Amino acid sequence: MRFGTIEEGAGTTVVVQASPEDAAVMPYPDLDAMLAAPEAQWRSAATTALASGEVRPVASLSWLPPVRRPGKVLCVALNNSANPDRIMRGPSTPAMFVKPSSSLVGHGRPIVVKEAYGRVHPEPELAVVIGRGGTDIAVGDALAHVFGYTIINDLTSPTMRDADTFHYRAIHPDPESPDGIRYVDSWVSYPARYKGADTFGPLGPWVSTRDEIPDPHALRITCTHDGALVTDDNTANLRFSVAEVISFASEYLTLEPGDVIAMGTALQRSARGGAVQNVDLTRLGGVIEVSIEGIGTLSNPVERR
Amino acid sequence: MRFGTIEEGAGTTVVVQASPEDAAVMPYPDLDAMLAAPEAQWRSAATTALASGEVRPVASLSWLPPVRRPGKVLCVALNNSANPDRIMRGPSTPAMFVKPSSSLVGHGRPIVVKEAYGRVHPEPELAVVIGRGGTDIAVGDALAHVFGYTIINDLTSPTMRDADTFHYRAIHPDPESPDGIRYVDSWVSYPARYKGADTFGPLGPWVSTRDEIPDPHALRITCTHDGALVTDDNTANLRFSVAEVISFASEYLTLEPGDVIAMGTALQRSARGGAVQNVDLTRLGGVIEVSIEGIGTLSNPVERR
Repeated sequence: MRFGTIEEGAGTTVVVQASPEDAAVMPYPDLDAMLAAPEAQWRSAATTALASGEVRPVASLSWLPPVRRPGKVLCVALNNSANPDRIMRGPSTPAMFVKPSSSLVGHGRPIVVKEAYGRVHPEPELAVVIGRGGTDIAVGDALAHVFGYTIINDLTSPTMRDADTFHYRAIHPDPESPDGIRYVDSWVSYPARYKGADTFGPLGPWVSTRDEIPDPHALRITCTHDGALVTDDNTANLRFSVAEVISFASEYLTLEPGDVIAMGTALQRSARGGAVQNVDLTRLGGVIEVSIEGIGTLSNPVERR
Repeated sequence: MRFGTIEEGAGTTVVVQASPEDAAVMPYPDLDAMLAAPEAQWRSAATTALASGEVRPVASLSWLPPVRRPGKVLCVALNNSANPDRIMRGPSTPAMFVKPSSSLVGHGRPIVVKEAYGRVHPEPELAVVIGRGGTDIAVGDALAHVFGYTIINDLTSPTMRDADTFHYRAIHPDPESPDGIRYVDSWVSYPARYKGADTFGPLGPWVSTRDEIPDPHALRITCTHDGALVTDDNTANLRFSVAEVISFASEYLTLEPGDVIAMGTALQRSARGGAVQNVDLTRLGGVIEVSIEGIGTLSNPVERR
């Protein structure tokens, strides 16, 4: 099944896909609420909604992020094997940051970029929605914690990233003396602005439930700008798998139902050349689309302010 | 007034301080719910709760983070003037990261550290709880968006910080050619683990409403480890003020009621010497307390696993 969250009158509702053209209304305001209910309950509600025959055209829907206020949007950085030679030094485990829920927007909504942001580029990614929470989840059990798969455009401003990077002398304890300190030349960067600005997290439109995606590592993923192909990649190229990331993350951060994990940018360039970094939305505007096989297409126009 | 959130039977409730020894029960499960209600409503509920005379001893309370699931915990990095000479290159505006709500724990709850975390040290900080949300908030209006002030211990693992730092060749567009790229030697670090692990965000116990704290930049803030003073600082030493941080952050990230802003570490060392970096909780265990004048004391034992 495929679920999404839409505006409905003055409120919001979950919809379930009835056909490529039609969706039926579910009795939950958003996936956050649906995932707080037992699976048997929402599966039964979906069966009832689909059997009712009361559907509305998908083309008329006003989309919201399917999960509206996840506890966390955990994003894996540099998780592709396209350019391993680019990393001179880095961890041998998934490196992650958190995007705030206030950065999420639905399919069709504008990505707002301001002159002050400097360069802003898209990053097409597979996103996992957690159905069952947990801590210290084993790799072998990890996929059972997945509710489904969706699409995220992990917008990034390299200008703000550079601005919010410090080269500084970090305070380290002096191993020679219990109260002594020494300075260590360090670099540290902080992602709240460059990854978390408003509208920097288009998500959706549909979440395909786990059973619809037998292998999350065999999906073509493409990104287009104004219809021109920018990247053409496959989730087979992810360095750390969905199960490995869930397991590793849950050793440190308890996963909760509705949490979203962005699996890292599919950045293999299309035959045309170019890279996501060439698509400066602040300068170019336009429409960005990310498509993943078996899940759908996430399309957002850019609004320059 | 001062508010907190506690466990109550099988659920949770907001309490309002009636005296240093007693607290009255409010009709909201947590501050998240209370701050979704109009201010006139919760002020009236507090008056009723305090007038009822039905109180319970503060010493018997089982504390939770006052806001249990904020949309974001936005943390300002390196926001002190104690060591400006440490920064060789850095932004002239507040640099920020996001801690997930799953990292928050209440007063009295254990800070859990695991051998695999490496070094973990405390960071004593003033925290702001947003009452009224907003975007593009002017500096002069910013304090009117504050619900109150509380205490956060922004626990940090420098070992995981070093592990999750990349030295790599970032892809930049080539200014000479629209589809060309060039590589730029860069450093980037990702804070989800080292700042966001479970229990890395003790918060509370009380939130003092804005009217109780006429000047948030004149508060003594201390940190002790097993009773020994580690840092002795004052919020006067913050580089960017509460109003400046709220205004700057809201230009990029919409602030929502219940959002928490951690103002940066008060790291001025006590006369005894030592620094927060010397207090490796993974090795030392013990009890960490952070006290802020006019707000209270946040105390957490360390549990080593």
